[in-house]
Amino acid sequence: MNHLRVPSMTREALIESLKPLLEPGKLLTDADSLDAYGKDWTKHFAPAPLAIAFPKSIEQVQAVVRWANEHKVGLVPSGGRTGLSAAAVAANGEVVVSFDYMNRILDFNAFDRTVVCQPGVVTKQLQLFAEEQGLYYPVDFASSGSSQIGGNIGTNAGGIKVIRYGMTRNWVAGMKVVTGKGDLLELNKDLIKNATGYDLRQLFIGAEGTLGFVVEATMRLERTPKNLTAMVLGTPDFDSIMPVLHAFQSKLDLTAFEFFSDKALAKVLARGDVPPAFETDCPFYALLEFEASTEEVANEALATFEHCVEQGWVLDGVMSQSEQQLQNLWKLREYISETISHWTPYKNDISVTVSKVPAFLKDIDAIVEANYPDFEVVWFGHIGDGNLHLNILKPENLSKDEFFAKCATVNKWVFETVEKYNGSISAEHGVGMTKRDYLGYSRSEAEIGYMKAVKAVFDPNGIMNPGKIFAE
Amino acid sequence: MNHLRVPSMTREALIESLKPLLEPGKLLTDADSLDAYGKDWTKHFAPAPLAIAFPKSIEQVQAVVRWANEHKVGLVPSGGRTGLSAAAVAANGEVVVSFDYMNRILDFNAFDRTVVCQPGVVTKQLQLFAEEQGLYYPVDFASSGSSQIGGNIGTNAGGIKVIRYGMTRNWVAGMKVVTGKGDLLELNKDLIKNATGYDLRQLFIGAEGTLGFVVEATMRLERTPKNLTAMVLGTPDFDSIMPVLHAFQSKLDLTAFEFFSDKALAKVLARGDVPPAFETDCPFYALLEFEASTEEVANEALATFEHCVEQGWVLDGVMSQSEQQLQNLWKLREYISETISHWTPYKNDISVTVSKVPAFLKDIDAIVEANYPDFEVVWFGHIGDGNLHLNILKPENLSKDEFFAKCATVNKWVFETVEKYNGSISAEHGVGMTKRDYLGYSRSEAEIGYMKAVKAVFDPNGIMNPGKIFAE
Repeated sequence: MNHLRVPSMTREALIESLKPLLEPGKLLTDADSLDAYGKDWTKHFAPAPLAIAFPKSIEQVQAVVRWANEHKVGLVPSGGRTGLSAAAVAANGEVVVSFDYMNRILDFNAFDRTVVCQPGVVTKQLQLFAEEQGLYYPVDFASSGSSQIGGNIGTNAGGIKVIRYGMTRNWVAGMKVVTGKGDLLELNKDLIKNATGYDLRQLFIGAEGTLGFVVEATMRLERTPKNLTAMVLGTPDFDSIMPVLHAFQSKLDLTAFEFFSDKALAKVLARGDVPPAFETDCPFYALLEFEASTEEVANEALATFEHCVEQGWVLDGVMSQSEQQLQNLWKLREYISETISHWTPYKNDISVTVSKVPAFLKDIDAIVEANYPDFEVVWFGHIGDGNLHLNILKPENLSKDEFFAKCATVNKWVFETVEKYNGSISAEHGVGMTKRDYLGYSRSEAEIGYMKAVKAVFDPNGIMNPGKIFAE
Repeated sequence: MNHLRVPSMTREALIESLKPLLEPGKLLTDADSLDAYGKDWTKHFAPAPLAIAFPKSIEQVQAVVRWANEHKVGLVPSGGRTGLSAAAVAANGEVVVSFDYMNRILDFNAFDRTVVCQPGVVTKQLQLFAEEQGLYYPVDFASSGSSQIGGNIGTNAGGIKVIRYGMTRNWVAGMKVVTGKGDLLELNKDLIKNATGYDLRQLFIGAEGTLGFVVEATMRLERTPKNLTAMVLGTPDFDSIMPVLHAFQSKLDLTAFEFFSDKALAKVLARGDVPPAFETDCPFYALLEFEASTEEVANEALATFEHCVEQGWVLDGVMSQSEQQLQNLWKLREYISETISHWTPYKNDISVTVSKVPAFLKDIDAIVEANYPDFEVVWFGHIGDGNLHLNILKPENLSKDEFFAKCATVNKWVFETVEKYNGSISAEHGVGMTKRDYLGYSRSEAEIGYMKAVKAVFDPNGIMNPGKIFAE
């Protein structure tokens, strides 16, 4: 049910009134399109959009937004639809606005190191473009081959290099947005310093399309890292990972610091297509990466490794000596998500401040162990920034429905623990619809009230991605 | 005139009703205090506050805000009062809320590299505290000895290291604010990754106290830079500075890239207390800084210098070989502002994207030259981030009033040129009252409308720093 649509107008009449605002053939209503463009990587909601619109210009986006205000129809932005929180799901007769045909790189400036992108530019496309210019776009994650810049901005995408380069937020020099009222705003004009009132750009980053649509973005590029080198280190327990992180962070500018458990590693190694890092069995592993730009830096890294071994924090370790070895070490971490998908994992993407990670992780482990001793818990994540991916694997003897029902109970305990540790119920996947009912574990009632009031400023009719972040 | 105050209550009655909300002796109304706490470094407005309140706790700040809402009295936040846009000036019977007694460092976490600060902590105090921990707080500028963290956040302070470390915004892990409605919000809880709706923290950073007051802030620290090394390079013209910046930025992680003109340098050298960098006279100079962490890096810098000389972009140059030499080179740049204050300069703090700087600077020079050939223009600034400080010196034969009247005309041309180049009328000094009437040159009417509506969400009675950023 769409709470927004004026019931007096039929679906057909709505579609007919929308069609002239787009180019011929750029409004789809066939069943396959509705299904494909109505969902993201989550599978909890049945897609049921009214139609899929493919604007080719900012003016067309504005026209669609004005139409939606007039007819009180919800609009759902669609990028690469790789989201994990159902923020791009259209389950209630909304019009999906896909940016697939606004996918060009419009401009590049070598002095400013900036690239002007349409919102439909794919992350990988930007990364490759940067490479061609001898530069680097540092935001990277599993779905970079499909995710689009507009979606990255809407979710403030993070990933594996945040410890060094920060989130997508850090790389948006400026952007053009169309608000829920249909206004085109040019935010920040790509300036580095601009102290002229509220930085509304920041408000739209991570807003999951609930305030308006990103219709153009100027992204910053960085110099290419020199001789990226990885280490995989095995630790005797989880607690030891923290002083290892601290020791390396004090000596080197890390570009990544990931961790995974023996259970995660075992599943990846069982595939048979990735060589093990070393023979020693350890309960936990850290993968760190840095620029071995000079021999001195590499030596510093080795000295720090030796210090960690002496302290008993590290049992064994290996350092990549070639690009191939670097790739192989990364596979141990990057293949986890895909590999465990076989066990229908219940996933949570949570964060606490780095120093609280060990106590937090132990609390969660204890809760699951006490209540569901037959559940296998697989931990991995971006420990350098406090971001943990909690994965509970479905036991073979449990049906999917039973398993997810039990996980719903676990969910509550997990989020109560997140709240206790002053953490985030969604580190980098956003709120969308899947985390909406749990928002109160991370944000106060007063904060949520202000957020809703801010939404009303930019989207008074509530047409922008309705039901996302907040209930309608 | 205070547009907010209910006229039926006398000044005395208002002060009596406010006094019990603060500790004894922490509400001042003597003439000296009103004068001292009613102004910042600007001198355009006569201070006329009702009283100066010195809260010692968050609860007291909330009580004052509730009182102000009840009595419709404006509140002006006061940090180090080093602002250059009159954002901390109380000229209309407001109560100044000074954070001088909320000036303690509350907590430090070595793993998270975070420091919890009360808003009145002085920038230098935080820098020294970081040093004691073997760490580094990288935001630095001329007024760091007096400016306070709360004020830095309110203005999103920048300074001389932005090219590497960004603005104050980058270093705020989380903060507590009291909104204009008196609500206490704990924003972001010091997390690195937190995708749970709008990042309201970002909205308060740079809001100049118009949405609420920062009452606690968790600031991030960074590893201490290794062997900071500076170069001063002389160029044959302004245009050559750009390829020099580009060449060095491609090879090194610069921590600063400043420029100044021969006129600025001559004035500093005339003081007699700073040695010249070298003998060759050049119209423009660049000062760049980097971490010479290894000999290879230093050699790379020298090779880049030689490349620039071969290309004709650089006429002469020098590289610091010691901490003392580093300090001396920096003095050539840092003493400019203080030195030219003798000539009662008309100042503007403007920015454009880096690539547009040469054309922009030429346009402004031509305008001043054509209209006021007797005006001496002194340029300097943070060219690495497009931030230019334009200083016009008062000719001896002109009175201060005549000079500033003529500068008001120049102002309009400068801002029209800023608008033409899509730049900012206030790069890092904020809007306050001095730039308020020019906001439209940098922000569209629609944007300003949204900003005002956002303000109304957090401060419905308009009591928070009224008349700043926008006219009342």
